[in-house]
This record gives sequence, structure tokens and C-alpha cells, in this order.
Amino acid sequence: MNRKSFRVIKPEIRVLGVDDGAFTPHVKGHVPVIGVVFRGGYWFDGVMHTKIAVDGFDATDSISSMITGSSHYKQLRVIMLNGITFAGFNIVDVKALNVATKLPVITVTREKPDFAEIHKALQNLPNSEARWEAILDAGEPIEVSTRNEKAKVYMQTVGVSKEDAQKILRLTSTRSNIPEALRVAHIIASGLSRL
Amino acid sequence: MNRKSFRVIKPEIRVLGVDDGAFTPHVKGHVPVIGVVFRGGYWFDGVMHTKIAVDGFDATDSISSMITGSSHYKQLRVIMLNGITFAGFNIVDVKALNVATKLPVITVTREKPDFAEIHKALQNLPNSEARWEAILDAGEPIEVSTRNEKAKVYMQTVGVSKEDAQKILRLTSTRSNIPEALRVAHIIASGLSRL
Repeated sequence: MNRKSFRVIKPEIRVLGVDDGAFTPHVKGHVPVIGVVFRGGYWFDGVMHTKIAVDGFDATDSISSMITGSSHYKQLRVIMLNGITFAGFNIVDVKALNVATKLPVITVTREKPDFAEIHKALQNLPNSEARWEAILDAGEPIEVSTRNEKAKVYMQTVGVSKEDAQKILRLTSTRSNIPEALRVAHIIASGLSRL
Repeated sequence: MNRKSFRVIKPEIRVLGVDDGAFTPHVKGHVPVIGVVFRGGYWFDGVMHTKIAVDGFDATDSISSMITGSSHYKQLRVIMLNGITFAGFNIVDVKALNVATKLPVITVTREKPDFAEIHKALQNLPNSEARWEAILDAGEPIEVSTRNEKAKVYMQTVGVSKEDAQKILRLTSTRSNIPEALRVAHIIASGLSRL
């Protein structure tokens, strides 16, 4: 694991939020994945993109290459993902992503992932065991609060302490209960899917 | 002309910034156009997109339809364009855009448009007279300052007083000398051209 310990979390820390676009479930094809760079919770700094296969196995490699090949890479301090399942069940191996990018990875979801439901859905897909292992490997989601003390979100972390991860989520969730970089990545990925 | 007079300009006024993506000049093809909705100068609210032809005549119609067909349309109070020449010399007729959308239009550029240069470039294109008229019709660009008193930008306005237009530019130019909606539309349109 590539571990970062933050002596101080700067208000303008460069964070990346990654989300995928809309697609038709179970239909072969590619889905756009958008990465949005923010300085802290206020300033939109840049955008990057890649494509991954519906229910494929290329999410980890494609997202790693998108990040390390970006002009923003050197400024980035943390990667935030909207969960670990992209384009259906194209699972991101968050530990491999952490090693490949040398950056901490924090997943953030509004709902607690329903593992029983996911396990069931996986049975219809090839290589369901490998997918299930990647999901378990990401660890148990932890309930945290961000902007609103009462509203809970769920995070998984690699390469960063839970304390630092929560500080980063609080600092960057300026307008909703999820970090701005993730909120905006979601809007762009959803809005531009058919570009 | 559809004229709006603002009794008060709210800090969270919904503005749209419109810019085009990268393309190869003089080569037939289509260019993505991105519209970004901001609340004032801070909050990214949404995104919309269309495509227009390189050196074509569809910019006005395509951008009008993109706006009036968007779920954000009813909230929008002003349209801001990065100049009036899109996708080469596909000129936006700002008066027609104002009438079609019933919204004020403000163009913003960092450099003062060089009309002699533009007039010369137009000679190589079909319908150069119609293009030239659309350019003259937008009126003389006016020098204004936004975030930084000393740095000048240039605006043209339709359907809004120059005083209100300048207030809106000042309010929304929170991070650079051009409004955030336009700065971010430029980043997205440039970054996602090959999506």
C-alpha cells in the first residue's frame, strides 16, 4: 500500500472526483468516466475522461491511466470515487489504484452498499468470484458525517487514515454532503453521456 | 429585443456560460458546444451541450435550442458567451439568441476582437457578407474590469443595460477576470472534445 499521512490538510488541496455516465445495464458498450479536479471544495480546476466497458474488467486500469496520464497528476493529493462499482459491475480495485497512482483513495456513497444485493447480482456475470473479491477487498464502508452533522455518508479508504479521510471529506463537501469534485463529476458524466 | 432590467442582482443569480471545444480549423466537421450553469460565481449547477458545424451557420439555432430545451432554462437569468465566433466563423447572432431565449446575452472576451483581422479571414468563406453583418450587429465591444480593477475584458450586451451587465460580470468573476461559468465551460469543452 502507498500510504500518505497529511501533516496538514490545506484548504486548497487538489482532489479528484471520479464518476461514470449513464448507460443501459447489461447491454454491451462503453461508458464515459469523468474525473473532475477541484481545489478544496470551491474551485473547479480541470477535467479528464476515459471510457470503460459495461460489466467489464478495465475500470482499474483505465482510471489509473487517466489519472497518471493527466496534466493534473502531479498536483493531485487524493482520489475520490463514487463507490467502487462503475459501468454496472466493472469493479475498481482500490488497492491497485492506490499503488498505481501513489495516491490515497477514498470512496464515498450516500447509501450504505447492500452487499447481499450485490452478491446476488454478481451471480449473473462471468468471473463473479473475482468481482466479489475486489468488492470485499475494499473493506467495510464506514459511516461518517460531512457538511451536515446529521446526514451520514459512507466511505472506504486506502492509503490514508480514517481521520485524515474524514477531514478531507468535510473540507471539500461545501455544498452538499458529498465532496464538490464528486458532485460535479456526477453532473458532467450524467449530462454529457451522449456527447 | 427582449430587455431585462434587474431591480437587484442576487448573489445566486443563475447564469449560463457557453464555449466551444477544440477542432481543426477549415476542416469540415462538428464541434461540441458546452453550456455550464452556475449560481453566481461559486456553485456549479449543471451542464448542457450541443454540436455545431465548423464554419457553419447553425450556432444561433443550436445554442438557442440547447438552452430552451434544458431543464435549467426556467432558472436562467442571463446567457454569457465566449465571444460570438464559435467553431471557426459560425457566428452567433446575439440579437436573435436574445429574442429566441428571452434572456439577456453578454459576450465576454479577454482580448479586444480585431475586426480588421476578422474581416480579412471572412473573405475565404462562403456567405462572408452575412457573417460580417452578424459580427457588426453585435455592436462595439466595451472595455470593462471585473475581478481585478486593472485587468480589462471586453463585453457586448443585448437585452440588458451596460451597468447591470458589468455588475453581473463582477459578481460572477470570482476566480479570474472572466465569469466562472465561462471559465469552467472552456475547461470542459476543451477537455472533453474527444469524448
